[in-house]
Amino acid sequence: MHHILSDALPGMETRYRTNLINSLSGFKSLNLVGTHSSTKQTNLAVFSQVFHIGADPALLGLLVRPHTVPRHTLENIQETGDFTLNHIREEFMLQAHHTSARWEESEFSACHLTPWYSGHLSAPYVAEANVRIGLRLQETTPLACNNTVLLIGSVEEIWLPTGCLLADGFVDLQKAGSLTCSGLDSYHKVYKGMRLSYAKPHALPKVLNQNPL
Amino acid sequence: MHHILSDALPGMETRYRTNLINSLSGFKSLNLVGTHSSTKQTNLAVFSQVFHIGADPALLGLLVRPHTVPRHTLENIQETGDFTLNHIREEFMLQAHHTSARWEESEFSACHLTPWYSGHLSAPYVAEANVRIGLRLQETTPLACNNTVLLIGSVEEIWLPTGCLLADGFVDLQKAGSLTCSGLDSYHKVYKGMRLSYAKPHALPKVLNQNPL
Repeated sequence: MHHILSDALPGMETRYRTNLINSLSGFKSLNLVGTHSSTKQTNLAVFSQVFHIGADPALLGLLVRPHTVPRHTLENIQETGDFTLNHIREEFMLQAHHTSARWEESEFSACHLTPWYSGHLSAPYVAEANVRIGLRLQETTPLACNNTVLLIGSVEEIWLPTGCLLADGFVDLQKAGSLTCSGLDSYHKVYKGMRLSYAKPHALPKVLNQNPL
Repeated sequence: MHHILSDALPGMETRYRTNLINSLSGFKSLNLVGTHSSTKQTNLAVFSQVFHIGADPALLGLLVRPHTVPRHTLENIQETGDFTLNHIREEFMLQAHHTSARWEESEFSACHLTPWYSGHLSAPYVAEANVRIGLRLQETTPLACNNTVLLIGSVEEIWLPTGCLLADGFVDLQKAGSLTCSGLDSYHKVYKGMRLSYAKPHALPKVLNQNPL
């Protein structure tokens, strides 16, 4: 096995260390975050730092660097109070990745993605996305360790493709075409997956479906 | 499409809402978190709430509920200051899920997983895991919105299987066998994936390898 101690990290070439450390947490969510400024300029940014915070109340978190590329996302959310999550699919993966370039104009027009407005939230959604979630900012927590900012939003509305919301509330993200990513730049489809039964002592969990893992 | 407004969430059956909201962020990381108490009782808990916080300094975050099942994890980390992440693979997926049952004894023995100590960190690793990361607690941030606690740890050591650390620092997690999950209970393998070039304006990113997505 490779064994790397923390002593070795400071001496690594920056890009090498960035690739390495960004791989460690495991596979990540892959969303386009849609916002607009107070002057209605739209913005799109690709994020792998979106996560579940809680189900009741329904909250999702977004970790933002304050002074690098996604700065507009942070400013816009703080100005307008809302933002959208749009799960990235294979069909617009290259355009989604392209939003991470430094654009002067809106990433929607620059990257050929279509803004769409639900009427319930002012922030723009991505029409090409199957799974879309509208959020309203509830809490802004700066992290002392590295000056990133954790934005927590309440779930205001949910759009899901027909046939992907199962009877028990589970959303079949594989069927919806949502991708996952690893590191900074590796995009992956997933297999159908196996759902496991609620775990109880003294009997192994059961596989609840017959999908291949 | 299904359209769900936030007004509908409070009236949902609890398990339905939990399944739904836990699906929204997208695919998640899948780790066993290894800890021990001040009296050396070991503990293992399955977490999908592990995420990248920053590469320099190298930091990972873990979101913990203070008063539910993984309480021992939080107490142990606060007592001893260190913890391990162990990527879950297909070979021990059922045992990993089984750690979420309410056990009196250590989940290592209850779920037939093997503790392993590196000598650099006091917390136990899972010998069955290919990717293992040792962390030391740096910051504890309670989130006002729902009383969860964000624990941020510095990367102290990294163990990776031979052949999975590429020349540019990227870790091939698909080759390492790491799984992803969705919702509360759905485990997925991923396809090999496509790495994309660093995004620049005015030319679509390039696919850097010939893997199927």
